[in-house]
Amino acid sequence: MPIFTKPIRVYFSPDKKLHESLRNILGFYPTHISLYKLAFRHSSAAQVIKKGVKDSNERLEFLGDSVIGTVVADYLFKKFPFKDEGFLTKMRSKMVSRQKHNQLAIKLGLNNFIEVNNERHGNKTSSINGDAYEALIGAIYLDKGYTFAQQFILTRIVNVHIDMDEVETKEVDFKSKIIEWAQKEKKEFRFDAIVDGASSEDKQYSIQLLVDNVAVGNAQHFSKKRAEQLASEHACTVLGI
Amino acid sequence: MPIFTKPIRVYFSPDKKLHESLRNILGFYPTHISLYKLAFRHSSAAQVIKKGVKDSNERLEFLGDSVIGTVVADYLFKKFPFKDEGFLTKMRSKMVSRQKHNQLAIKLGLNNFIEVNNERHGNKTSSINGDAYEALIGAIYLDKGYTFAQQFILTRIVNVHIDMDEVETKEVDFKSKIIEWAQKEKKEFRFDAIVDGASSEDKQYSIQLLVDNVAVGNAQHFSKKRAEQLASEHACTVLGI
Repeated sequence: MPIFTKPIRVYFSPDKKLHESLRNILGFYPTHISLYKLAFRHSSAAQVIKKGVKDSNERLEFLGDSVIGTVVADYLFKKFPFKDEGFLTKMRSKMVSRQKHNQLAIKLGLNNFIEVNNERHGNKTSSINGDAYEALIGAIYLDKGYTFAQQFILTRIVNVHIDMDEVETKEVDFKSKIIEWAQKEKKEFRFDAIVDGASSEDKQYSIQLLVDNVAVGNAQHFSKKRAEQLASEHACTVLGI
Repeated sequence: MPIFTKPIRVYFSPDKKLHESLRNILGFYPTHISLYKLAFRHSSAAQVIKKGVKDSNERLEFLGDSVIGTVVADYLFKKFPFKDEGFLTKMRSKMVSRQKHNQLAIKLGLNNFIEVNNERHGNKTSSINGDAYEALIGAIYLDKGYTFAQQFILTRIVNVHIDMDEVETKEVDFKSKIIEWAQKEKKEFRFDAIVDGASSEDKQYSIQLLVDNVAVGNAQHFSKKRAEQLASEHACTVLGI
């Protein structure tokens, strides 16, 4: 990252303080400060600006999420020249998970900037911080361009906050994810198992995961534990967890 | 797009013909021709270069798919300033569908470049052309950078080959997608319906879509037709169609 001297506009900006705070956590002065204000505005604190549209960070989040995905795809493509696309896909989904983005947002201190209306925001268990992180990347992309956003993600996030060895070795525990989600959302769930095959060699488990009595995932495997993991992974895709 | 004069390297390249052909369909001369060769190599025609890795276009496809997603996200973000992220997400998924990419590949004439081994490539119904299109974008991104790839997608694809009005108004018919897919893949499928509610006002349809007797999608709605569509949409997500 280049060194940024303070631009003259900052001295005269009504948002001088925000400029300086963002300089401290991001390492550069924003050009269009309004984009960053928008990135930190949760929908509970947003105003309706036109029928059906709020000035919340959700549109920026949509954009930023995609930018992060591409930057990480590029990074993995170059870091692992001899791994196939299945490996790259898996690695990326671990690097850009909701949980990871929530953690990154806290590490960067973004939670101090987020505008949220606690009265209107009922669901405390959501991913407000991670969403703001994605929206921030969307803002940087629009403000400074792709290459700048890419440099920011690589030097300020990936190189500093992501332990690639950990990402590579860590298996995602989908069953725990489902259990955690069901508790938060107050849903009932159960795994129904059917055993096929008479002898111990042929034995195969068909597992169906039901949430509030609706089948959301199913899988077959010789190991019951593995079948449950696969059914949970299936359900995570279906439920968008 | 700027006008490209012929670079000196083209006159001396052993791939002179390929350089010229690509110039004709893409509008520019590639810098690193090997990337484009790789983009057109289907896995059936690829060699194993190291344990578990082939020199096929699948890695480039992973990258290109992501680049297209970001370029289209940016495009929609700016084209529809007063639409919410739900609308943007829906529009994008219609613009970057497998079917759309297959069509685009044919329109660009990419099918003439694809290296495929028909003996080893059993499944004729796949998306070889669309995959090559995605890989080509990955190659352009690596060869010329994000901004160039973005310009290419916008001026040579979106502005020329995509009818935005059609995309906006067209509803995706998920039931037809499932039927088409099941016929191609030779799978049996059926919709099981349960009607809840005694009076005609309370009546609600619970539809379960089964493929080869495995439940892959379910949905509830007051309209049976709509419930079938929703269950099919659900199944498309689950099956990755």
